[in-house]
Parts: sequence; structure tokens; C-alpha cells
Amino acid sequence: MSSDRLAVTVVGLGSMGSALAAALLERGHPTTVWNRSPHKAQPLVDRGARLAATPEEAIAASPLTIACVLDYEALHTVLDPVAGSLAGKVLVNLTSGSPEQAHEAVAWARSHGADYLDGAIMTTPPGVGSPEMMFLYSGSRAVFEAHRPTLATLGDPLYLGDDLGLASLYDAALLGLMWSTMTGWLHGTALVGAEKTEATTFTPVAIRWLTAVAGFLTTYASQVDAGRYPGDDATVDVQIATIDHLIHAAAARNIDNALPELLKTTMERAKAAGHGSDSYASVIEVLKNPAGGE
Amino acid sequence: MSSDRLAVTVVGLGSMGSALAAALLERGHPTTVWNRSPHKAQPLVDRGARLAATPEEAIAASPLTIACVLDYEALHTVLDPVAGSLAGKVLVNLTSGSPEQAHEAVAWARSHGADYLDGAIMTTPPGVGSPEMMFLYSGSRAVFEAHRPTLATLGDPLYLGDDLGLASLYDAALLGLMWSTMTGWLHGTALVGAEKTEATTFTPVAIRWLTAVAGFLTTYASQVDAGRYPGDDATVDVQIATIDHLIHAAAARNIDNALPELLKTTMERAKAAGHGSDSYASVIEVLKNPAGGE
Repeated sequence: MSSDRLAVTVVGLGSMGSALAAALLERGHPTTVWNRSPHKAQPLVDRGARLAATPEEAIAASPLTIACVLDYEALHTVLDPVAGSLAGKVLVNLTSGSPEQAHEAVAWARSHGADYLDGAIMTTPPGVGSPEMMFLYSGSRAVFEAHRPTLATLGDPLYLGDDLGLASLYDAALLGLMWSTMTGWLHGTALVGAEKTEATTFTPVAIRWLTAVAGFLTTYASQVDAGRYPGDDATVDVQIATIDHLIHAAAARNIDNALPELLKTTMERAKAAGHGSDSYASVIEVLKNPAGGE
Repeated sequence: MSSDRLAVTVVGLGSMGSALAAALLERGHPTTVWNRSPHKAQPLVDRGARLAATPEEAIAASPLTIACVLDYEALHTVLDPVAGSLAGKVLVNLTSGSPEQAHEAVAWARSHGADYLDGAIMTTPPGVGSPEMMFLYSGSRAVFEAHRPTLATLGDPLYLGDDLGLASLYDAALLGLMWSTMTGWLHGTALVGAEKTEATTFTPVAIRWLTAVAGFLTTYASQVDAGRYPGDDATVDVQIATIDHLIHAAAARNIDNALPELLKTTMERAKAAGHGSDSYASVIEVLKNPAGGE
């Protein structure tokens, strides 16, 4: 079986890179690894990985190289000196960065004769290898399709389009959603915690509520695309009235209210822009038109 | 069958009160309704509801009265003059308000000889009647259990405890989570929208991502209860480095960054408090200890 599997090189063995290599090894891919500090490779070598002595040797070992290092500076530090060895190879870059950095990287890779996919890993290292976890890719569809079976070893590969910046852009957008959701959840957890409700009691209710909220997002997504925000279910005016209950309850319990105060200000800007009787989706209009923007 | 069902009175026929009465009628409950503007009762009368001429007559018609009016001021305007008729009845108050208002209302109801449950409706009117939607209740467990079958007509009834303020407190906490999540989603939608990705394309990915985020919340809830936040998966330091990608990408596309800037500031406060290598759950420590608080 394992001889059918594509040979893959993993460059960068932080906790995420190590998880990627481990998932490849587990599915029988001949796996070569390289890391600036070679001792990090030992657990993988124990499981059958081949440790390359240099980045050049690592890239030469496999048709496909997956790079997952700290940032783009580290990426270029490692790969620039050995760029010539990338000719005819496929580079899948899972290093976190901006859409602009992804665009620069593809130009660099192509100038050296390499195919390039940009990707984003939407899980933590323990989630790598689970088919439930999303890996986002952008770049050439043909390159993506040719390597889909290998990429599926890492998680569920989603192809976003041939605009190279899309994986980074989605990554940023989804992380923003995560931080917003986690901070809102922590604020609520602090609020009920002030009345002796444990986080593990509140959180299953919160998670179930997120399922209902996901239903609202589906409804509102169509409104955003249509540019019309009928407030059939709940209007911005109603939300503004209701958020005061949260702000007062949290203030009475000495909980930081910066987040709900900002949310209220944002809603009030939507109201001032004429969206008081529209749905919450209309708030996107003020996000797209910042105060002081044109 | 319908004669087995408890007679119920619904006071307040806004869109939510009307949805409650409609769900009761649909399941065969003899339903009496009252609203300040009686014309709102007509669609319900057409479906078999009895329209009471006065709040007193409405309360007298059923052992259980559900109140769902605009706010507590409206509640007291309607019920104070007829409080005497509440003796021996059960009042379930689904009016939105603060925990403090709920505590005042129960004292008022008990002084008039009524049993009282406070509740919160975690759905919009179209969701009323669905067993997937949560209705939160606090107050006497015995009263809740006695009326659980009737309350299950409206949605899935969850009993939170005998502290009367819990339903309002959870309501506020969950709505805060909703606004945070929706605003984070709108920010991300605006970001990818700047590169011509439609909201209806981005949102299924965002919803799937929320499922992964829910997994993080489950892990972090145990950390919050333990008061220890091991940063095994991702540290506050890493999140601070990563959020700059979001802020730069959004700024480059002229999208309002007030929300991610606040999230970054909050993370930096957690770092300054010594949580740089802890998980994101440690951010609750700064929410519980606002700047300038004791």
C-alpha cells in the first residue's frame, strides 16, 4: 500500500508542521522532513520519517513540499538560498500570512519554475488528520486536483479559487470570527460566572445557541448579497434596546464592557445610517464604510 | 385530545406573543389572548383563540398566563391594576429584561399570591414551536416541572435553577455571544467581499468553522472552571501575532477595524497580565478585572 502514496517533504517542524508530517506518515506517505533545529525531527524519524540534512536535499526528495514555518520571513530565509531546487516541484505553503504575502510568494515560486498552492489550516495541531477539519487552498485548480488525495491526508481540503490570496483572506476572516465568538463567549461566561454558574454549565447552552445563530447567518448572508436587509425577525432598533440589558447586567457585576459597548456603538452607527428597522445584517454597511472613510 | 390540554392565556400580541399563542393553538391548547390593541388578536381568533375584553378577564380564563410584552414598564402597566386576579395562578414572564427586573417581578407576583417563572426565548418568532429552539426558565422547579408539557409546546424548555434572575442573565450572555459572533462574521464577510467573494459563498465555510470553534469553547470551559489556561494548542502570544494579518488585510480594503483592534487590545491586556503563553481562555481574567477596577 505505502508504495502507492506520494512522497512528501515537510519543511518546518513546529507543533503544526510536526502534526502534518505525523499525519502523512500515519497514512503511509514516504515522508522527508527538515527543520532548522534538527532535534525536533526525532519523534518523526522514530515513526519512519527521513531527516534531510539540508533544505535542498529535503526538496529534492519529493515531488511535493509542504512548508509550514513561523512566518514569511522564516519561509524566505529557508527557501531563497535553495530556490533553484524547486524547479518542476510543487510547493504547498501552509505558513500563516497575508493575501499580499501569498501573492508575492507565488510570483517568487513561479520565477523558479515551481507550481504553488497557498493554504490555511483551520484547526489546531491535535485536529490535523481529522476529515472534519478544514484546510483551505487557493491557486491553480489543476495543481490542487492533482494533489487532492495527498492533501486529504491532512484534513478536508477545500478549494477556494485561483486567486492566490483567497486562502489567507479566508484565514484572516475566519480567525476574526473565532476571536469575536470566543471573546463574546468569555464575556458571557464571566457574566453568568458572577452568579456562580460554572463555565462548563453555561457552555453547552452557548454552543447550542451558536447553532441557532448559524441559522441567522444563513438568512443574513442572502440579505448581504442582495444589499437589502428586511428586519422581519429582529431589527437593529430592537437590538439596541436589548443590548442595554447586557451592558447594565455586566456593569453591575464589574465585568469589562468594552466589547458590548463597541457592539452598541456599531449598531447605533447602522441606525444613524438609516438601518434602524433593518436586520442586523445591515451593520455590514457601516463596516464597509468606516467613519471618516470615503 | 384538545380537552386534555391546559388552558393558557397569552398577554401581549407583538410578533413574539402572537407566535406563542399560535403554537399553543396549533397543539390544541384552549387559548385566551389579550392585547392593548385588540385588532392584533384577529388572526389568532380566526384560528380559535378567545379574545378577552380586559387583562382581568384574560387572567381569570386560564390557570397559566404567559406574558410577553415590550418591556417591564409595559408589563407593570398591564398587570398592576389587575394583580388581585393573579392569586392562585401561575405567571410565566417571557418579557425581556434584566435579572434585577426579574427579581422585582417575582416579589411582586408572590405578594399577590401567584406562582412565577421567569423565561427567555432563544429564537425569533418564526422559530417558536420548534423543539430545536431553547426556552430558558428560572424559578421554582416544582412550578416548572408541573408546566413542562405546556412549555414544551413553545420550544425546548431548559430549567436553569431556582435563582429567578438566571433566565435573564443567560439571555443577556447569549445575546452578547450572538452580537459578537454576528459582527465578527459581518467583518469577515466584508473582508472577503472586498475580493468579490459572495456572502453566501463564505458563510457555509464560516458556519462549519464555528463547529470547530465550539470544540475550542468546550476545551476552554474546563480551563475557566479550573482557573488554569494551558496554551497547548495556541497561545495568546501567537494570537496577537496572527491578528495583525487580519487588521492589515482589512485596513488595506478600507474596512472598519474597531472590532479586531479591540480584540487585539484585549489580548494585549491578557499578555500584560502574564498570560502570553496561556490559551485564549485566559482573556476572561481581564474581562473579570476591568482596567481601573479593584
